Amino acid sequence: MSAPPPRVNGMRCFLEPSSVAVVGASHNTMKFGHFLMRNLVELGFEGKVYPVNPNTEDILGLKTYPNINHIPHDVDLAVIIVPAEQVLQVMRDCSQKHVKGVVICSSGFREAGGEGIKREEAVIEIAEKAGIRVLGPNTTGIVNASNNFTTSFIPLPKLRKGSVAFIAQTGLFAAAAFWWILTAQPFDLTKVIGLGNKSDVDDAEALEYLAQDEETKVIAIYMEGIKDGPRFFKAAQEVVKSKPIIVVKSGRSESGKNASRSHTGSLAVRDEIFDAVCKQTGIIRVREFEDLTDLAKVFALQPLPAGNRVGIASITGAGCVMAADECAEQGMEIARLSTGTLDKLRSYVPSWATVANPFDTEPLFESVGPESAVTLALESMLEDENVDCAIFVLATSPVFKFDINNVISDVLKKYPKKPVVSHIIGPKDLVDYYVHQLEGIKIPVYPSIKRGVSALAALYKYRMTQKRAARD
Amino acid sequence: MSAPPPRVNGMRCFLEPSSVAVVGASHNTMKFGHFLMRNLVELGFEGKVYPVNPNTEDILGLKTYPNINHIPHDVDLAVIIVPAEQVLQVMRDCSQKHVKGVVICSSGFREAGGEGIKREEAVIEIAEKAGIRVLGPNTTGIVNASNNFTTSFIPLPKLRKGSVAFIAQTGLFAAAAFWWILTAQPFDLTKVIGLGNKSDVDDAEALEYLAQDEETKVIAIYMEGIKDGPRFFKAAQEVVKSKPIIVVKSGRSESGKNASRSHTGSLAVRDEIFDAVCKQTGIIRVREFEDLTDLAKVFALQPLPAGNRVGIASITGAGCVMAADECAEQGMEIARLSTGTLDKLRSYVPSWATVANPFDTEPLFESVGPESAVTLALESMLEDENVDCAIFVLATSPVFKFDINNVISDVLKKYPKKPVVSHIIGPKDLVDYYVHQLEGIKIPVYPSIKRGVSALAALYKYRMTQKRAARD
Repeated sequence: MSAPPPRVNGMRCFLEPSSVAVVGASHNTMKFGHFLMRNLVELGFEGKVYPVNPNTEDILGLKTYPNINHIPHDVDLAVIIVPAEQVLQVMRDCSQKHVKGVVICSSGFREAGGEGIKREEAVIEIAEKAGIRVLGPNTTGIVNASNNFTTSFIPLPKLRKGSVAFIAQTGLFAAAAFWWILTAQPFDLTKVIGLGNKSDVDDAEALEYLAQDEETKVIAIYMEGIKDGPRFFKAAQEVVKSKPIIVVKSGRSESGKNASRSHTGSLAVRDEIFDAVCKQTGIIRVREFEDLTDLAKVFALQPLPAGNRVGIASITGAGCVMAADECAEQGMEIARLSTGTLDKLRSYVPSWATVANPFDTEPLFESVGPESAVTLALESMLEDENVDCAIFVLATSPVFKFDINNVISDVLKKYPKKPVVSHIIGPKDLVDYYVHQLEGIKIPVYPSIKRGVSALAALYKYRMTQKRAARD
Repeated sequence: MSAPPPRVNGMRCFLEPSSVAVVGASHNTMKFGHFLMRNLVELGFEGKVYPVNPNTEDILGLKTYPNINHIPHDVDLAVIIVPAEQVLQVMRDCSQKHVKGVVICSSGFREAGGEGIKREEAVIEIAEKAGIRVLGPNTTGIVNASNNFTTSFIPLPKLRKGSVAFIAQTGLFAAAAFWWILTAQPFDLTKVIGLGNKSDVDDAEALEYLAQDEETKVIAIYMEGIKDGPRFFKAAQEVVKSKPIIVVKSGRSESGKNASRSHTGSLAVRDEIFDAVCKQTGIIRVREFEDLTDLAKVFALQPLPAGNRVGIASITGAGCVMAADECAEQGMEIARLSTGTLDKLRSYVPSWATVANPFDTEPLFESVGPESAVTLALESMLEDENVDCAIFVLATSPVFKFDINNVISDVLKKYPKKPVVSHIIGPKDLVDYYVHQLEGIKIPVYPSIKRGVSALAALYKYRMTQKRAARD
């Protein structure tokens, strides 16, 4: 194996440091510098942690130093969480200490305008002279589920290793989004890289790091501005060959651009151009965070389909109609079921019932009961050579409740190359029950049929992107 | 008060019957005819209920008759839940009994094609001769929270009186949707009218009934086909003057139309035309059921704004940017805050923080703590004469948890004419906690900023529709 490119190595200190100094660590439980320390200790990061604070000797059982230069060991990374006015002095200390990188959590830089802009320029000047890489400022920085390392000052739960990486140009939002994913989504994150103001490290570099990271299978990005468009898109072009990239870019409108300027001091980019280049590159651009998690979920849980022919099975007739509309509107084909499949299904339903795709499973429920109906409908779709993927629309009521996994997990195992998604509606407790069951066997469930079909469409489009990339 | 129009009277037997025969009632707990009886008894319908079944003498403690004509009292409404082949005979019995209306729950009619079409025609022939109104066939029919009457054969929970009526051209879906609303939404339904195949009663007539129903404030419709377009739109034009109408119409695409044909035997309507007439009439057309509940929620809980100027307060900078984009893209203006508001907010935040609309409340959190920050941000927005409505974007983490209602309900009471919506992200249990709190004081919370802004935009657009209607 050849050595990874230098820029990947440049990112290592942020994600895989062996020793970390926390400048601004605190034992005051109201301070961010305290939460940051608690995260490092409680999540179980195995590298060395050196708190730095002139007013105390011990934080959470760790020997504390008055200045980073008093630490009698090498330090890979300094995490800086002191008021903005003190950051330049800390940078000079870091420069003397020869750290490889700094994560600057503090805000009060470019995003604040005026003095803040000058302060950020001064930070970069020191960093460049000393050969220090900078993540931030104005960021919660890193969460790495692979080694339990974090620079986040928002309390985090125990990390679970996942396959989705998240690059975010925002601190608090990334942290809240991280919590949401961890507690409400059936997929897990492998790495979060909060870029903040992108004074040095930017999306392109983060992307290059994630490209070579074996644990990362899917890359989700929230960005407001773009620092170096050509570099970002060049990196993305390579990455999409093997990993889907899903992007929310805000600051689309003039008002959004203005708001972004005081959030991360972002450089504006013309939205039509960004959009066009995403399409050309094969980056999946979505409108908002809800879409981002919808797609990350399907990419994390399901395979890519060979084509766009959808099998639709629905317990309600309305579900059949709505799913057919959504397929038509989202570039998916309603699969033409083979004669064999149609005949098989016909043999189970009353003579008056229509057998077609979409397939209304209600008559089947009456003839063979819910368990067999679900299995039969799903298996008939998946075994059909004319079907590439399926959506299963469920409606539930207190009449019946069954162990859906028992019923369909064997069927699903037989067709590992055909993605399946689901939608369910009914009493909330039952919906929650089935969502938990289905997502437990990796079938993503969506709160609307539209979102379910969008997920299948994204898998298909990405498959086409990969094919095109392989040809080029 | 003048007498209601005859067609409204024609609908009364379906929603406000004083005596009901259930033909096909059963004590077999596996049969729909049993669930239907259970609903009537357990929900506490106060009218007379007469089960009809030749094989038993008693169902759930009620004397059971072998034929509707053996009932020694007048019967307003017959609910028919027998196999399709037996429906014509039951219709003849009903004709002899002089019932005012029948709800035909059975399927196997127009939606089944062939014989089914003829069967439906025969039903209507009998009904017309006998002056019987028909709801269905192929429907779960009525749920009326005002008098606890239902013809639904899907088990229902105890009804709560609400303000949103739901007209649905589908049975199972309406039932599942009803359950979802009742268990997962902060608003309640007043009436559900399931139209099924619309062999007689259609959307227009249902709309006319709901127009004069005092408990109905908002009308939500799921439809696939339209029976009498001009009549429907004429009725709608009147209704929108006082009550918003939100419509999902599926069967938009060719595939959707095909699926609809075998679902409810609907007549196709050109989608562009339907869409254009909705716009002209002021009907709010949305794509899918999730949008329908999103908007029903805001109309049920919030007032209409005087204009489209939005105040945006967000705990995260990213929330500011995303909300600004959504406002710009959805026809809402970012309010220009008055000098007084800006000065007031400036007096509370550190000098480096930007004060503008969108307003990033994070610096305020640090200076005055979360409770005061939320109150101050929200009140400053709402008291500003340049603000018509507000969105409040929250991000939560385990660092703080407070009783948000205590904090803001007094503020909200001061500005009863300015709608407020919210979005929140963070750990699921905390998100659920705040959603429960906020929706408890009637602030609708949305899972995305886009959906929150869409809700405000719908309120504003409907306000414009009302103004236009008042001028005409």
